[in-house]
Amino acid sequence: MANRITELFNIKYPIVQAGMVWNSGWRLASASSNSGVLGLIGAGSMHPEVLREHIQKCKKATNNPFGVNVPMLYPSIQEIMDIIVEEGVKVVFTSAGNPKTWTSWLQEKGITVVHVVSSVKFALKAQEAGVDAVVAEGFEAGGHNGRDETTTLTLIPMVKEYIQIPLIAAGGIATGQAMLAAMVLGAEGVQVGSRFVASEESSAHVNFKKLVVDAKEGDTCLTLKELAPVRLMKNKFYNELEELYKTTPTQEKLKVLLGKGRAKKGMFEGDLEEGELEIGQVSGLIHDIKPVAKIVADLLFEFDQAKNKIMEL
Amino acid sequence: MANRITELFNIKYPIVQAGMVWNSGWRLASASSNSGVLGLIGAGSMHPEVLREHIQKCKKATNNPFGVNVPMLYPSIQEIMDIIVEEGVKVVFTSAGNPKTWTSWLQEKGITVVHVVSSVKFALKAQEAGVDAVVAEGFEAGGHNGRDETTTLTLIPMVKEYIQIPLIAAGGIATGQAMLAAMVLGAEGVQVGSRFVASEESSAHVNFKKLVVDAKEGDTCLTLKELAPVRLMKNKFYNELEELYKTTPTQEKLKVLLGKGRAKKGMFEGDLEEGELEIGQVSGLIHDIKPVAKIVADLLFEFDQAKNKIMEL
Repeated sequence: MANRITELFNIKYPIVQAGMVWNSGWRLASASSNSGVLGLIGAGSMHPEVLREHIQKCKKATNNPFGVNVPMLYPSIQEIMDIIVEEGVKVVFTSAGNPKTWTSWLQEKGITVVHVVSSVKFALKAQEAGVDAVVAEGFEAGGHNGRDETTTLTLIPMVKEYIQIPLIAAGGIATGQAMLAAMVLGAEGVQVGSRFVASEESSAHVNFKKLVVDAKEGDTCLTLKELAPVRLMKNKFYNELEELYKTTPTQEKLKVLLGKGRAKKGMFEGDLEEGELEIGQVSGLIHDIKPVAKIVADLLFEFDQAKNKIMEL
Repeated sequence: MANRITELFNIKYPIVQAGMVWNSGWRLASASSNSGVLGLIGAGSMHPEVLREHIQKCKKATNNPFGVNVPMLYPSIQEIMDIIVEEGVKVVFTSAGNPKTWTSWLQEKGITVVHVVSSVKFALKAQEAGVDAVVAEGFEAGGHNGRDETTTLTLIPMVKEYIQIPLIAAGGIATGQAMLAAMVLGAEGVQVGSRFVASEESSAHVNFKKLVVDAKEGDTCLTLKELAPVRLMKNKFYNELEELYKTTPTQEKLKVLLGKGRAKKGMFEGDLEEGELEIGQVSGLIHDIKPVAKIVADLLFEFDQAKNKIMEL
């Protein structure tokens, strides 16, 4: 399965484990890297020194390449980037911000830079900023999401028309079939999020993992579009948001209800009622909590099985 | 490419040309059927006697099977169904309503019945109602759309887990690559809409066809969720809707702005400012107006090309 993505990251399979807030610590990232895919630590939910600890533990737990996902709106962004350089991380995925700001600074230090986008316009901006690859993430993805609401099925070929650098598909991919579908559409690799939330090594609270496993079609919704669109599991907090929306709330009122720390409360501490539970539509296809090695093996098995089935068409 | 879908409709390729309001008259349906796919007349925009005329013209223009798409909320539904039976139409696609209402009545008259759904729940209801196949249509699709906002990439495998009858994928499919992707995900056939809008034989106004060809990623949006969710091209009318939404309008106020006849005005009469322009996200991938025969040939060519590329993975 060698291609531009496996070569770029020096990994065995063109699969990236998404660096998700409150889910992607060193245990998940190192287990992913040890399984032949690219593991990512999610810096978005870590204080700088916590990130340093996770990077150091990850280095001890795997000899394979791993990376860090950095939402660029992070307050201590310079500190985070310095730690990444100091600790010798070789891959950074940036999101939520201008790719021009950090790309060459990181690349000059020998770091491979990938930027996450949700539209053709942002994909072009990322390519112009000189990133090494782009993740194009569709509307079905969990967590923060684009304003165009373009789905993975339509976004991937549209981005592919405009960019020449390697393209990684994200959003709605939890099976080998979806991985093959994404590659049929022009992606050279896939980023998988929700499936890894329900892994043994994810740092998500077990209550949240169980909720993901029980999720059905229609259980998530994109909301908070006035602040930053985010796909959440429908729960008590989500219902309160829906009630508030009926009153045409100001952004301020939305911020008050959102408050602080709801993502941690939900995903990390397991408060399924008050927490903000970021997960993708594909949770409806996830039926078990498995070790990362088994998730990767199953993805590859399903991929081959789907490929063989297609050859019979 | 023989499978349950080609056998069910007695067609050469497992492709359905969607029966779209103001786009799918006898010219489009007969050209599609003559190209080896299933042509559908869209009854939703036709008075009963206009539908009869289209069916009669379609019978003269093709010896191949064709069908009629019937939104069941149509006011003269009994008259429409009687005409379909009288004129000997062999395939009916129903949408927007309870599949129990008409399925056995039509099947007793030798008619194959397919129901269009947007969720797992409705797919199960359709299967229970005894329909011969299901179209599962994702969030990216043009025109009327489901409330769950589930995308084609995630909807198809989720529906596939629950139903045993043949499954046709719709929403976001305008290329042979997307057709292959849908089949990798478990569909046995595809329904293609937007691509056929920009065909020479579609009854859409040439202004609308040209707008579709010029569309870019992000140019459509799902709106009017309080009435019936519909995906539209963003235009003057859409912007007026957005302005109205800022005032938390009642359903009544939305209905007043929508008024009557906007779909005809936009898609059929070519008023791109005041009209309601129903089209899918995939319009961003459509770059030319082509004859139906060429569209079908290209779909098949791209499908084979994508299959060959996959075999090299």
